[in-house]
Amino acid sequence: MEKYIYAFNEGSKEMKSLLGGKGANLAEMTKIGLPVPGGFTITTKACIDFYEKNQKIWDELLSEINEHIAKLEEEQGKKFDSQQNPLLVSVRSGAVISMPGMMDTILNLGLNDETVKVLSKKTSNERFAYDSYRRFIQMFSDVAMGIEKYKFESVLERVKEENDFEYDTELETKHLKAIVEEFKNIYKIEMKKDFPQNPKEQLLLAVEAVFRSWNNPRAIIYRKINDIPNNLGTAVNIQSMVFGNMGDDSGTGVAFTRNPATGEHKVFGEFLMNAQGEDVVAGIRTPKDISKLEEVNKAVYDEFMDVTKTLENHYKDMQDIEFTVEQGKLFLLQTRNGKRTAKASIEIAVDMVDNNIISKEEAILRINPNDISQLLHPNFEVKALDEANVLAKGLPASPGAASGRVYFNANDVVNAKARGEKAILVRTETSPEDIEGMVNCEGILTSRGGMTSHAAVVARGMGKCCVAGCGEIKVDEEKRYFRVSGKTFEEGQYISLNGSTGNVYEGNIPRVEADLSGSFETFMSWVDNYRSLKVRTNADTPLDSKTAVRFGAEGIGLCRTEHMFFDEDRIEVVRQMIVSKTVEERKLALDKLLPIQREDFRKIFEIMEQRPVTIRLLDPPLHEFLPKKKEDIKALASQMNISYDELYIRIEELQEFNPMLGHRGCRLAITYPEIYAMQAKAIIEGALEAKKEGVNVNPEIMIPLVGHVKELKLIKDMIKELCDKLILDSSIDLKYKIGTMIEVPRAALTADEIATQAEFFSFGTNDLTQMTFGFSRDDANKFLREYEEKDVLEKDPFQALDQTGVGKLVKMACDLGRQTRKDIKLGICGEHGGEPSSIEFFHNIGLEYVSCSPYRVPVARVAAAQAKLKEKNSQKNLILQ
Amino acid sequence: MEKYIYAFNEGSKEMKSLLGGKGANLAEMTKIGLPVPGGFTITTKACIDFYEKNQKIWDELLSEINEHIAKLEEEQGKKFDSQQNPLLVSVRSGAVISMPGMMDTILNLGLNDETVKVLSKKTSNERFAYDSYRRFIQMFSDVAMGIEKYKFESVLERVKEENDFEYDTELETKHLKAIVEEFKNIYKIEMKKDFPQNPKEQLLLAVEAVFRSWNNPRAIIYRKINDIPNNLGTAVNIQSMVFGNMGDDSGTGVAFTRNPATGEHKVFGEFLMNAQGEDVVAGIRTPKDISKLEEVNKAVYDEFMDVTKTLENHYKDMQDIEFTVEQGKLFLLQTRNGKRTAKASIEIAVDMVDNNIISKEEAILRINPNDISQLLHPNFEVKALDEANVLAKGLPASPGAASGRVYFNANDVVNAKARGEKAILVRTETSPEDIEGMVNCEGILTSRGGMTSHAAVVARGMGKCCVAGCGEIKVDEEKRYFRVSGKTFEEGQYISLNGSTGNVYEGNIPRVEADLSGSFETFMSWVDNYRSLKVRTNADTPLDSKTAVRFGAEGIGLCRTEHMFFDEDRIEVVRQMIVSKTVEERKLALDKLLPIQREDFRKIFEIMEQRPVTIRLLDPPLHEFLPKKKEDIKALASQMNISYDELYIRIEELQEFNPMLGHRGCRLAITYPEIYAMQAKAIIEGALEAKKEGVNVNPEIMIPLVGHVKELKLIKDMIKELCDKLILDSSIDLKYKIGTMIEVPRAALTADEIATQAEFFSFGTNDLTQMTFGFSRDDANKFLREYEEKDVLEKDPFQALDQTGVGKLVKMACDLGRQTRKDIKLGICGEHGGEPSSIEFFHNIGLEYVSCSPYRVPVARVAAAQAKLKEKNSQKNLILQ
Repeated sequence: MEKYIYAFNEGSKEMKSLLGGKGANLAEMTKIGLPVPGGFTITTKACIDFYEKNQKIWDELLSEINEHIAKLEEEQGKKFDSQQNPLLVSVRSGAVISMPGMMDTILNLGLNDETVKVLSKKTSNERFAYDSYRRFIQMFSDVAMGIEKYKFESVLERVKEENDFEYDTELETKHLKAIVEEFKNIYKIEMKKDFPQNPKEQLLLAVEAVFRSWNNPRAIIYRKINDIPNNLGTAVNIQSMVFGNMGDDSGTGVAFTRNPATGEHKVFGEFLMNAQGEDVVAGIRTPKDISKLEEVNKAVYDEFMDVTKTLENHYKDMQDIEFTVEQGKLFLLQTRNGKRTAKASIEIAVDMVDNNIISKEEAILRINPNDISQLLHPNFEVKALDEANVLAKGLPASPGAASGRVYFNANDVVNAKARGEKAILVRTETSPEDIEGMVNCEGILTSRGGMTSHAAVVARGMGKCCVAGCGEIKVDEEKRYFRVSGKTFEEGQYISLNGSTGNVYEGNIPRVEADLSGSFETFMSWVDNYRSLKVRTNADTPLDSKTAVRFGAEGIGLCRTEHMFFDEDRIEVVRQMIVSKTVEERKLALDKLLPIQREDFRKIFEIMEQRPVTIRLLDPPLHEFLPKKKEDIKALASQMNISYDELYIRIEELQEFNPMLGHRGCRLAITYPEIYAMQAKAIIEGALEAKKEGVNVNPEIMIPLVGHVKELKLIKDMIKELCDKLILDSSIDLKYKIGTMIEVPRAALTADEIATQAEFFSFGTNDLTQMTFGFSRDDANKFLREYEEKDVLEKDPFQALDQTGVGKLVKMACDLGRQTRKDIKLGICGEHGGEPSSIEFFHNIGLEYVSCSPYRVPVARVAAAQAKLKEKNSQKNLILQ
Repeated sequence: MEKYIYAFNEGSKEMKSLLGGKGANLAEMTKIGLPVPGGFTITTKACIDFYEKNQKIWDELLSEINEHIAKLEEEQGKKFDSQQNPLLVSVRSGAVISMPGMMDTILNLGLNDETVKVLSKKTSNERFAYDSYRRFIQMFSDVAMGIEKYKFESVLERVKEENDFEYDTELETKHLKAIVEEFKNIYKIEMKKDFPQNPKEQLLLAVEAVFRSWNNPRAIIYRKINDIPNNLGTAVNIQSMVFGNMGDDSGTGVAFTRNPATGEHKVFGEFLMNAQGEDVVAGIRTPKDISKLEEVNKAVYDEFMDVTKTLENHYKDMQDIEFTVEQGKLFLLQTRNGKRTAKASIEIAVDMVDNNIISKEEAILRINPNDISQLLHPNFEVKALDEANVLAKGLPASPGAASGRVYFNANDVVNAKARGEKAILVRTETSPEDIEGMVNCEGILTSRGGMTSHAAVVARGMGKCCVAGCGEIKVDEEKRYFRVSGKTFEEGQYISLNGSTGNVYEGNIPRVEADLSGSFETFMSWVDNYRSLKVRTNADTPLDSKTAVRFGAEGIGLCRTEHMFFDEDRIEVVRQMIVSKTVEERKLALDKLLPIQREDFRKIFEIMEQRPVTIRLLDPPLHEFLPKKKEDIKALASQMNISYDELYIRIEELQEFNPMLGHRGCRLAITYPEIYAMQAKAIIEGALEAKKEGVNVNPEIMIPLVGHVKELKLIKDMIKELCDKLILDSSIDLKYKIGTMIEVPRAALTADEIATQAEFFSFGTNDLTQMTFGFSRDDANKFLREYEEKDVLEKDPFQALDQTGVGKLVKMACDLGRQTRKDIKLGICGEHGGEPSSIEFFHNIGLEYVSCSPYRVPVARVAAAQAKLKEKNSQKNLILQ
């Protein structure tokens, strides 16, 4: 027979999935002898079964509850409904993963019209007893029975008004007695029943309410957002009450065993004497720093300090502890691993390793890799932020904190910067033409587009703060202003962006720079010792490359050459190349681009030194380089000295229905081989120059969008011949590789054929996801949110790799590729290269490296180390089995 | 050691790959004792090796040539350069697959300044000898040495002009002698060498020329177009000359053993006495019908008639025979399987089966399935066509012959039809808004778009004649005219289109209807007996369905519901539905569509009877139903009684960057479940009504664009609940299936999961090809031609399934699907369902059916039977091995 209930002295912290986090920790504290008020936990299994039994408590469970209540009564020497010593309990939910939105707490259960009198007598405090009773009725009605809160609040307000009171505490016993009567009356009207006087009935209703709260809409949404399975269920904790408000020798408090903001190794918390938890929230009395407890009650203080040490050593992690002192006696009501900032989590982990509390492996596994990125960006000053006014909230598209004056196009940003201003680029959405503005601004704000929109992707690549898809703001780019909640922001006004939260603030909020030394440095050095997956970076410029090297990048996995084409000094030539009518004209334009590109590459090679640098040849469709609006076309035509019609026709010719699936990538090189020829030449010449200066360069030329082995062969043969000749003529010993991106499903499916021509594969999981799902990244935001809401997709596949579908293709391609070429180099350079769950997948299928934007490099290093450690642990478990 | 040369008496028809078609057949005729002038064949292997040996004849080959010349001299009692009896030979190329563009023939090789005199004497015909010599010099110089033809022609012209001659035959010996001198002089100037007098030298030069002609640009292009591998090489046939122009007892002719146009079993051909083949071409003397040969020379006639019977029985196929009579003796110069019309090929095959010459299986394997479609469409009267003026040539996008007055928009076509006119719709390109015009016209002509453009696909679906991408015509839709080669065609003028050739004609060319009875019927009944793969049709209307049933369709594999939405009586409601702001408004519009859709389906069910009907729920993105141009939006807004801005904003909202990968297919139903609910209701209600009338309907509801099992489950559960309730309420026993299209790569990759929710899969290979290659069908034409030219892709993957990539996905999905659901129904409904090589693939991986446009149904039936027979034969071969 299923055992549905565990007394606190029967469980342990290992039983978390059955007892919930709270229940397991109460049991654990009981087990190690800490002073925990007695009680028991109804298991999560009971909750699951409750849903299978028509949401009613059934006989077996009922008799177990009765049994444990009897035991508790005996232990505590109290009894439900007793006229001498009535048992009062708290009822709390306790899921495996704590979850706001679920029913939280009912206190003082067991009070009724009789026991309230007993409580008055026993505590000699009638006011306390009736205040407890009215609170119980209110909490029970609200959280257990779903009666709207305001109905009770309005009674309280009215009574206070009538008596000219400001605070609840001013209510006297007579008021509270009258309020209790009114509350019971509300209950009767709402529930069409008297307020239950039988404590057992109260208890069963409360237990059912906790079970039902598991499927609160808010709880369901929270689980969705946080990837918590729906079938875990919640436990219910029933615990005998202790009171912190029984006089000046009683009190209540909360403390962390270390500072959760900085990680400092010093107990951090606060307490309030003669109070219940609620009083702290009410905010009329200011809680005191935990250190002051020593003055108030040294014995309790010393005991509590010992407890913090015991608990931290026992749990081997920083704890967040709730306690109550009842008439001079310390009771622990809860302990759990404390939430902390990224900075604190590193500090604590490193300190615990230094003090031999945990191993380095444990320290690494304990850090959430995503938190690392918080440490790399400057942050707003905490104090200034508290006072700032949030204008709107968009998507946290690229982390960081930025402040500046708003400008509405790239040109204005560039000019502002030239004037020495800090600018924020505000656009409806960005396009490649905005690149210069994006480079020169502090942060980017768009009203449209998702986490993988152009703005978001480029900004993350640059490590630039970006808030995207902020639908609340209405941008008028032409008139140069935006409106939000009734306010208008003209060009030049200050705003601030938090790219980690999506918040948009009014005004110029001061910032503090990130510090990468100390514990961070120590921690990352451990991480690098444990991982086998290499981490490269996606970097298109010398600046990006420098940043990435500082963050530990071991090479460039993706250097996109098209971004280089947008710079002011070359876009003109690029456009000449595109509108060329003959191969000769095109070659002339390309000849002008050659020295510029060579210089780009040389600089990057010199920064990256011996680290491999994978350069992707031109990828986007040519129309991306040409203007779309009539006036821009006109301007360009006159600048190029050709007729408007001529330019217009060329632009029309290049238009595509589905540019994503159009004439781009290596398809351009089938049509215009001279473009790739120029780029290959620039790469090799740049490498030769760098090598002449003593840099041991390792260039890798990457051909994008290959779907058929013959595309690759044709282009590879052409490039190889050209490169080999350049190297031969130079008499310099330069090694280079030619490989391909695997980003078209067909390439993955025929990777055995492709591998005959490729020395390396780099998975372009962005495009591979688009084509495998048939989702246009630019359009899918319209329906992807709905997909997540309706539980069709658990995660955005552009953020976390879809392992079942896209991942299957990637794995297949790896296997096929290795079949043909045993030592083929395998890596990934899509956005997923910086996402921890995807990194674990890539580690497991044996890729050599992941490549991600510079600011994700440390994240990826941690995720790679965790992947390795998880693999090791699961192998260990296999052997142990 | 490699044997590079086979004498005619050493080879046989089985050695075609080594000896080429011509050589193998000459050997075969020799073998079976027919009178073939002696000679030998240099193998295709020699040609291949020639390319590996720097395109020079090497020692081994040279000595074999010498050896065989010696043998030939001995056999013939003649000798190269002999003053008594000089050996003259012809040199002809002979590829495995005959190929225009390659070097054809050099006659009279061996003639020089001396042997020409001997020939004069021996034939007592100096004119003949010098005419032969000048022809030889001319042919040798042109075809072997590449000297431009016109240089010789101009001499001939000049001499004729000087003498006031009209025809070459009027030239006298003295003229010919002078011409020979001039010709030799041209050769000397061009080649900087004397015309070779040594016959052996002539021969070696000619052989090299044949080898080189294998890589003529024209030959290369021909191979590309006709899918002939580049590495086969050509053989060279060297044969001693016989002369049809040695007097009135000599002659030459060509004959088919049956009529190649009608298939009639009667020798069909012509001959000319005292002539060489060239004279027939010159066109001054009219050749006579072969039957007249009996009068000229009964013995030769009888012998030839015997030969035709021998050859046809021997080859078991209709033969195309070249012969020469030299001084009363019959010689055979060539035999090969004769080219014939589709009609003839059926007639001949059926007759040969009836006469036990071939088996039914052989008959089936002999027909090119693609030819079948020629038989289904009306054709132009042959005579009228001869006189017609070709205006331009576009792509043969959808077969058939159409004549009518040109109109430039759908509305004008509809009005013209209402007036009783026949109309041709001429557009730059078509869009879904043109549907009504396409339905009501005789044929469609577009100046843009490829074989898979909207016009082409829809026209093929309707079996309507279409010429697409005819770039030569310039259409002005607004002003209602098009221009081509200087002519302007206004609205209302007549043109005619041949959708099988792409020709566009001036004027109204009369037509004859197709006849499907007789041999065609017999043949198709055999086909159906042999195939196991079922053939369904893609049909969206009752009319399509009727046509398809007449052509033997066994069900509907794809009924697209969106085409139904464009009819005038419903597009308005569809648009109301799309611009609805609330679910309620949308439901109101859908309620209006319900009875219309129900009626559509009922009619189709009644036509299809017990045959399964797969109906695809709405697929295209909603913006396809809304106008794009400002004036159209204005008109619609006022018609819908909403503001322009309101409509414009909605249209803007629906715009997509990559509509192909956007908000369409089942994604619509995740957002607007009520659309699919209406459609499912209409299907089931239509089916119930049909069943009430005694039709044993088999509806299959198909959900498009599924990529994730949860999409399918969500929608299927919703639909199933609704359908089951309708059926239950009706008390009618109706079975139906719910399945999905597999057209997104992810669906194929996770077909095991998808199959848990789908009773059938129908492969949408059009979209699957787009996404697997990452090719937008609408854009890929820009570069796909270049891909074919550069040999990157051998075939357009939208026409013939890419078996290596897309096919791999299809096969994988079949295997995974069957893993989950053993009896899952598998079919394919993309364009490839009507393409023979793809059909063979689908047969081999065990699909249950293919589905194609009505006019491809008979093609698919033949291809399916062939696939089955090929499989059987290859199994037989396996067993024999």
